Amino acid sequence: MSNIDTMSVNAIRVLSADAVQKANSGHPGLPLGSAAMAYELWAKHMNHNPKNPTWANRDRFVLSGGHGSTLLYSLLHLFGYGNLSKEDLANFRQLDSLTPGHPEYGHTVGVEATTGPLGAGMAMAVGMAMGEAHLAAKFNKEGYPIVDHYTYVLGGDGCMMEGISSEAFSLAGTLALNKLIVLYDSNKISIEGDTDIAFTEDVKKRFEAFGFQTLVVEDGNNLEEIGAAIEAAKADKTRPSMITVKTKIGFGSPKEGQASAHGEPLGVDNVAALRVKLGWPSTEDFFVPEEVYDNFNSITEKNTKIEEAWNKLFKEYSEKYPDMKELWDKHHDEAIAKELLDSEDFWAYADKPDATRNLSGMVINRIKDLVPGFIGGSADLSPSTKTYMKEEGDYSKDNYAGRNLHFGVRELAMAAIGNGLALHGGLRPFVSTFFVFSDYVKPMARLSSLMGLPLTFVLTHDSIGVGEDGPTHEPIEQLAMLRAMPNFTVFRPADATETIASWYYAITSTKTPTALVLTRQNLPQYANSSKEALKGAYIIAPSTKEVPDAIILASGSEVELGVKAKEELLKDGIDVRVVSVPSIDVFEQQSKEYKEAILPNNVRARVAIEAAIDFGWGKYVGLDGAYVTMKGFGASAPAAKLFEKFGFTTENVVSTVKSIL
Amino acid sequence: MSNIDTMSVNAIRVLSADAVQKANSGHPGLPLGSAAMAYELWAKHMNHNPKNPTWANRDRFVLSGGHGSTLLYSLLHLFGYGNLSKEDLANFRQLDSLTPGHPEYGHTVGVEATTGPLGAGMAMAVGMAMGEAHLAAKFNKEGYPIVDHYTYVLGGDGCMMEGISSEAFSLAGTLALNKLIVLYDSNKISIEGDTDIAFTEDVKKRFEAFGFQTLVVEDGNNLEEIGAAIEAAKADKTRPSMITVKTKIGFGSPKEGQASAHGEPLGVDNVAALRVKLGWPSTEDFFVPEEVYDNFNSITEKNTKIEEAWNKLFKEYSEKYPDMKELWDKHHDEAIAKELLDSEDFWAYADKPDATRNLSGMVINRIKDLVPGFIGGSADLSPSTKTYMKEEGDYSKDNYAGRNLHFGVRELAMAAIGNGLALHGGLRPFVSTFFVFSDYVKPMARLSSLMGLPLTFVLTHDSIGVGEDGPTHEPIEQLAMLRAMPNFTVFRPADATETIASWYYAITSTKTPTALVLTRQNLPQYANSSKEALKGAYIIAPSTKEVPDAIILASGSEVELGVKAKEELLKDGIDVRVVSVPSIDVFEQQSKEYKEAILPNNVRARVAIEAAIDFGWGKYVGLDGAYVTMKGFGASAPAAKLFEKFGFTTENVVSTVKSIL
Repeated sequence: MSNIDTMSVNAIRVLSADAVQKANSGHPGLPLGSAAMAYELWAKHMNHNPKNPTWANRDRFVLSGGHGSTLLYSLLHLFGYGNLSKEDLANFRQLDSLTPGHPEYGHTVGVEATTGPLGAGMAMAVGMAMGEAHLAAKFNKEGYPIVDHYTYVLGGDGCMMEGISSEAFSLAGTLALNKLIVLYDSNKISIEGDTDIAFTEDVKKRFEAFGFQTLVVEDGNNLEEIGAAIEAAKADKTRPSMITVKTKIGFGSPKEGQASAHGEPLGVDNVAALRVKLGWPSTEDFFVPEEVYDNFNSITEKNTKIEEAWNKLFKEYSEKYPDMKELWDKHHDEAIAKELLDSEDFWAYADKPDATRNLSGMVINRIKDLVPGFIGGSADLSPSTKTYMKEEGDYSKDNYAGRNLHFGVRELAMAAIGNGLALHGGLRPFVSTFFVFSDYVKPMARLSSLMGLPLTFVLTHDSIGVGEDGPTHEPIEQLAMLRAMPNFTVFRPADATETIASWYYAITSTKTPTALVLTRQNLPQYANSSKEALKGAYIIAPSTKEVPDAIILASGSEVELGVKAKEELLKDGIDVRVVSVPSIDVFEQQSKEYKEAILPNNVRARVAIEAAIDFGWGKYVGLDGAYVTMKGFGASAPAAKLFEKFGFTTENVVSTVKSIL
Repeated sequence: MSNIDTMSVNAIRVLSADAVQKANSGHPGLPLGSAAMAYELWAKHMNHNPKNPTWANRDRFVLSGGHGSTLLYSLLHLFGYGNLSKEDLANFRQLDSLTPGHPEYGHTVGVEATTGPLGAGMAMAVGMAMGEAHLAAKFNKEGYPIVDHYTYVLGGDGCMMEGISSEAFSLAGTLALNKLIVLYDSNKISIEGDTDIAFTEDVKKRFEAFGFQTLVVEDGNNLEEIGAAIEAAKADKTRPSMITVKTKIGFGSPKEGQASAHGEPLGVDNVAALRVKLGWPSTEDFFVPEEVYDNFNSITEKNTKIEEAWNKLFKEYSEKYPDMKELWDKHHDEAIAKELLDSEDFWAYADKPDATRNLSGMVINRIKDLVPGFIGGSADLSPSTKTYMKEEGDYSKDNYAGRNLHFGVRELAMAAIGNGLALHGGLRPFVSTFFVFSDYVKPMARLSSLMGLPLTFVLTHDSIGVGEDGPTHEPIEQLAMLRAMPNFTVFRPADATETIASWYYAITSTKTPTALVLTRQNLPQYANSSKEALKGAYIIAPSTKEVPDAIILASGSEVELGVKAKEELLKDGIDVRVVSVPSIDVFEQQSKEYKEAILPNNVRARVAIEAAIDFGWGKYVGLDGAYVTMKGFGASAPAAKLFEKFGFTTENVVSTVKSIL
């Protein structure tokens, strides 16, 4: 290893240790242990251009162990990404700084994914690699490998322990994603102590079982050994690769090899000792010798040329294959909103009772023709969630161009892979499972929300309407769970028009993930349902009087009950307004005036009907209203019996309304 | 295989197929494919006594592939568990029947765990095996192996794909749980088709990597081969075992080997064809030849003697070791409530500011001395969650008597293992992680709720008080997520007294899991906090007037803000009541009168303060109140700066109260 390489690696170490020390908070262990592999990768093997961080064909790098963020920030600073300055490093973990505690996508230039929850980055990287393989299969032409990049992901023991990484890597092996390269920072230390207390498995063998090439770097500070392993990984054209890099947590500091190096500052004395141990030329905070900057700059210059060559190739490609260029642009363009909104075909439906999952399947098969980057699938439930795109083929190692993804029974990894597909760019992914299993999906849906990725979640079998499968399969509290999540939109449509509106909302969203919560059972079509559904709530059955005697609010399958109860109540001279609420989240965003028009403040007799827990409806029902909702878990029986058992009858709604008048 | 064995296996098949057909709903594929291994296990290798289904030393059996419930119901019927009748089988999946779609613990005698969400049963079985090893280490004496049983779990490809099984089995290997035996029903079929589309990994090799003995049964209908594998598994005294049993989904029916055999009735004609293929002696629905019942009865007679022998042994043990007998009874007795409530020591605390996570750690170290079955740990965060029990040792393969569990970074499996420990009996488990990672925990916490298991979840770092770690680590919507779950109690205490009350509630609960949501940062102690916290909400700072001008509701760390704002408001002549709400769930269960006393209906000026999303507070705040809550995700900065940035200041609370007066 040349002197300048050593200095560069140590610059990463010193900057990371200084940033954590300055913040008096953070995780120095990973950056000190992994600095060499990260430098070797970024400096000598990765195609990336700091001057154009969104270059489409760049190699992707995900720091799955997001707590080691100063490793990434140091690299970004040294390479000059987004002009991340020494001051930014010194502002690590401070309010509104560019260097938050964990890397945040969309916040700091050069961060490819928000990470922190362990294992998530691993699965997102699998999604990126799947995206690359798909676009390569679709776009590349003889002599024009315009999509041709690697996806690297770096994580430690924690990432390996999390089940999501097994889910994702099992799939990566099945799909033979040879452009995926996993760097396993193996330091044998966890927060509670030596990993032996909870993790003695043979990780390498597990990856062999998944179908990976496995490589081992015995000395995690040996750049040549690391470099050789990376090249061997790149050379395997049939399998993804996993490189075990044996490292020492907190390398070079007096806390080297100790659990206490993981998640707290080293201490001023220990940082000083680190400098001495590394032979660092200055005791000044955040000092980096000029020759180190020169080294990084010269690498960037080389990399700039790599992008220039690609730009030239892409230009030729565009001229030679204008149709492909047009398709490429469509893949990278989000602006289809207006076109869709005005399209009669898009909004058409047969006027007969149908399940919203079927109607969603119909819309999916329209969108696939309109949005070429639309891609997705289910966690082994597509025959039930109705998400199969006809004539679009199955994504497999023999057909990366297929648009139907088979995630297997792996809901959590599925959601993360969906994020990875969205992060890659050029794609418009959706994922799907039963609504009750949104529980498994939640941790990664939260990352979609945090990152502002417009991933769509198709969640069917949305209530006790599931019927015979019983309480383990009947969502009760999942609507509340997802509605409560910031920057996440839940739609529960009541019929075809609302289902199409929900999909319209999802597919035109740019910064917010959307969940479509859909029925297994048939629902009627409403004459009054409309694109007003896009406002989240609207009057689907007006009262005769201007000021109604009461307001019934309902979503999805329970709108029918509201409408029926309204008719019954009218016979008794009670004049009710029925408000369909396909999306509380969207309604919340409407103007005060619109809200008042739908739910006038002076009408306090309000009843919410939903085959779910009432949690969250109080905001609209208030202290004088009432609920027709679930009070606990469901049961196993034919759906019609369950709706009756749990009080979802016209009679009960009628008497509930009367009880508050 | 003898004729009576064949007939018995086929009886399981025919009963299962009939039940699904009669219900016109269900999953015949697994029962037909797995009937032979289940029969061999239950008839010839498992120690169980249908006449005493709760015998403490019975072998445990978990059907992880819960959709194949008719396999289990058929066994329970044939063995005479709980007098489960043919009529019960004929009522499969019907309202209020004993045979719901998926097996439900506490509902059907002989069902050891509620299963359905795939993989969950696998991890719960690991928990049961951990419980067995712990109690064996604690209680067994030379010549008196009074805790000495196996835990069997049966599941298919879906269970193997779910990440939770990798998490749990990796830990099982680390802990060398040799009494755990996994039966892998390997039929190569998933709902979307051949498993090759998503699951080509070498499962056997993965288990080898985990440290399991792996065995293969080539012919899943060969009882001798199955039996030999089970005996080989039992014989391994150092490792858990996994037996791959190669089966055919829907065996014997015309749909054999097809995905369509999985989750829908075979059809009347196919059930008839199954009978013919199996040479079944009758076309009558649910017909079982008498000699088959005789066979099962004779097995039960044999098994009854096994329990009798154990009872004799246990009697001798009790006489020889009266102290141990007393300890045993304490392990199996839940009645410590009264004692704790009146104990001054239990409720004592130092009157100085402290973090509720620390206070919880203090209580944990009290409970461990009072409740010998108390056992638990963290997903690699115990130094942060403060859950370590001093002087109680670390649970490991070398010390199963240790009470501190190290789950590794595996939150989902941790929760399921907690369920398994509780299901085993004799133990009072808790699990712990950061509150934000309750997202990962949720699917298994739902099973705790469904099963009515009093598992305790210690969830620390409960708000933006996390500070520098930033939005990935700051819970915002998790309170709503958990509060919305039926039969699940969330406590967010404000000081020492409330923290002790929360633990009191958790440890005396018998049918409801409890989450303790705790701060990282210090909180003040209140003079007025009290055991009234056990009612979920109470007046912590009364108004001077009987009818207050406004009510401030707050939980946990935000109670302080409420109290401070009250003082400020009083200076302006505004007389406010502050209600501390440690548990919305518990408050909801109070009488109408109590609720009215705390939140009088005529006081409509109400402000809720909580460093979380407002979702769910509307029920108390109503249409005329206001909120001081989070509006989106958090940020990375020192905690104090974040509370200020997001409006958690006395000034903001004061002005919010004024705005609604």
